[in-house]
Amino acid sequence: MSILIVGSLAFDDIETPFGHSDNTLGGSSTYIALSASYFTETILVVGVVGYDFEDEHFSLLHSRNIDTKGIQKIEYGKTFRWAGRYHYDMNTRDTLDTQLNVFADFDPVVPHQYQNAEFVCLGNIDPVLQLKVLDQIKTPKLVICDTMNFWIEGKLEALKKTLERVDIFIINDGEARLLSGDPNLVKSARIIRQMGPKTLIIKKGEHGALLFTDNGIFAAPAFPLENIFDPTGAGDTFAGGFIGHLSRCETINDIELRRAVLYGSTMASFCVEKFGTEKIASLELLEIEDRFQSFRELSRIDE
Amino acid sequence: MSILIVGSLAFDDIETPFGHSDNTLGGSSTYIALSASYFTETILVVGVVGYDFEDEHFSLLHSRNIDTKGIQKIEYGKTFRWAGRYHYDMNTRDTLDTQLNVFADFDPVVPHQYQNAEFVCLGNIDPVLQLKVLDQIKTPKLVICDTMNFWIEGKLEALKKTLERVDIFIINDGEARLLSGDPNLVKSARIIRQMGPKTLIIKKGEHGALLFTDNGIFAAPAFPLENIFDPTGAGDTFAGGFIGHLSRCETINDIELRRAVLYGSTMASFCVEKFGTEKIASLELLEIEDRFQSFRELSRIDE
Repeated sequence: MSILIVGSLAFDDIETPFGHSDNTLGGSSTYIALSASYFTETILVVGVVGYDFEDEHFSLLHSRNIDTKGIQKIEYGKTFRWAGRYHYDMNTRDTLDTQLNVFADFDPVVPHQYQNAEFVCLGNIDPVLQLKVLDQIKTPKLVICDTMNFWIEGKLEALKKTLERVDIFIINDGEARLLSGDPNLVKSARIIRQMGPKTLIIKKGEHGALLFTDNGIFAAPAFPLENIFDPTGAGDTFAGGFIGHLSRCETINDIELRRAVLYGSTMASFCVEKFGTEKIASLELLEIEDRFQSFRELSRIDE
Repeated sequence: MSILIVGSLAFDDIETPFGHSDNTLGGSSTYIALSASYFTETILVVGVVGYDFEDEHFSLLHSRNIDTKGIQKIEYGKTFRWAGRYHYDMNTRDTLDTQLNVFADFDPVVPHQYQNAEFVCLGNIDPVLQLKVLDQIKTPKLVICDTMNFWIEGKLEALKKTLERVDIFIINDGEARLLSGDPNLVKSARIIRQMGPKTLIIKKGEHGALLFTDNGIFAAPAFPLENIFDPTGAGDTFAGGFIGHLSRCETINDIELRRAVLYGSTMASFCVEKFGTEKIASLELLEIEDRFQSFRELSRIDE
C-alpha cells in the first residue's frame, strides 16, 4: 500500500538539558515518513525545501526508500527553520525562532503518479493546504490528519472543512480541549468526532494516548523511559508508525487500530532517545518488534 | 484476612465547579476503609475523632462492617477539618483551611485484638506516628504506606525510617519527584525502591498509575470519565481497593499486584463520581466487577 505524506521539511536548532543539536534535519513529514518507512515500501512525500536542503538530506530519505519526487526544491530560498529549547522536565518547550522561508509560499502539488495513493497523512500544516492536497487525491482509502493550536486558533473554518474529509484525526490533549472548548477529554472526543473523523487519537505525551472509535476507548501507556533525550518529532513519529501499521493491514478494525496506536507509541519511544531523526533513521525491524512486545507487557493483566 | 488502617478521620468542606458539600465525612482512613470493605470482612481502623463525630458517622462505617474500636473519641475536642476548592479542570485544588483539632495530639494506640493484623495500611499521617503503629503490630504480612509532600519536606528522616519497614509504597508523581530529587519517574522509582519498599506505585491522577516491582513496570490507565464530580479521597480510595484485593489473594505475585492496581483504579473511578464518600459508601459488588472488566477492556490489545 502507498502512503502519501504532506507536511514540513525543516532544519531545527534544538536545545535540551542534555545538549544541543543545530541544523538538524526535521519537519513533520520527515519524521512521519522515516517512521512509516519501517512498515511499508511506498512512501511518497509532498513538500518544499530550499537550496540548503542538500544531497545528503535527500540521500537519507532515499536510504529509507522514501520517494522524494513530490518535494519541490526552491533554489532561491531557504528551507523552513525552527529553533526550540526544552525545559528541565522535557514536557514544556519554548520556541526560540521560526523562519518559514520557502514554506511561506508552499502550494502543494501532488505529482500525477502520487494521485492514486491509498493512504494520505496530512501533517501539521495550514488546513487550507491540507484541503488542496485532498482535492488532488483520487480515491484515498484512509485519510489521517494532524494539526496544532496555531491552526485551531487561526484557521478554524478551514480546519473544520478538512475534518469533514478526515477518517482519523490525531491531536494532543491541549489541542483537543482548545478545539472542543471542553476540559474533559471524553466529552472533547465526542464533540470532535462529530466534526467528521470517526476515529480520534488524543496524544498525552509522557502519559500515553487515547483512541476513540465507535466501539469504545483504548488507553495506551507511553513507554517509561529513563532517558528522554529530545522530544522533537515524537508526535509525528507516532503518526508515522500508526499509519505505517494500518497500511499493511488487510482490514482496519479496532484491534488493528489499537495495535497501530502501540506501533506509533513504539516508534515515538525510539524517537526521543536521540537528537532529531538520528534514532528513527537507523532502526532494525527486530528492535521495533521487541519494543512493541514490551509495550504489550506494560499493560498486560493476565498470565 | 484482616486489614488494619491508620490515618485521619475528618470533616471536609469541598467546593468544585459543580457545587459544594459542607461537613462531609472524609479523612484518609475513612476512604481507605470504605473502599477496602468491598474486598474483605475484617477492617480495623485506628484513629481519633472529636465530640462532633456522631453516631451516624460510626453507623456509616459499621454499615460497611468496619471495626471502629480503635477510633479514640475525644469528648473535649473537635474532629480534624479540611476545606478545599477545586479548579475548573479538577486537576488542581487550593486548600482553604486546615484545622487539626484532636488530630494534633493523636497518639495511635493499636488495641490488643488488632495487633495480629496481617495487612497494615499506613495512611497519609506523620511518619513518626506511622512508625509507632508498626511498633505495635506483631508480624504483619504486608505493610502499605502512603505519604505527602508535607512529610517529605518536613519529616524526611522519619519517613525514611518508615520506608525501611514498608513493602508497598503509594505516592503520586509530584511526591515521587520530590522524594527522589529526579524528574524522571523511572529513575525516581529506582531511587525510592532503594529506600526500602520493593513495590512502588506512582499515581498520576487522570493519567493512571505505574506499578514498579522487581519484575518490571505495569502501566494502568485511569478510567476516562465524562463527569468528574469531586476528586477528594480518590488516592485513598485507590489504596483501599488495592490492599483490599491483595488481602483476598492466596499468593501475592505480579499478576495479583497488577489486578490490585486495577481494582484500586476501579474504586477511585467511583469515588470521583459523587461528593465525598457518598458513592463508595453504597456500591454493589456487581458494579465493581463490571467496571473492573471495563478497565481491562480499556487496555486490551488482543481479541
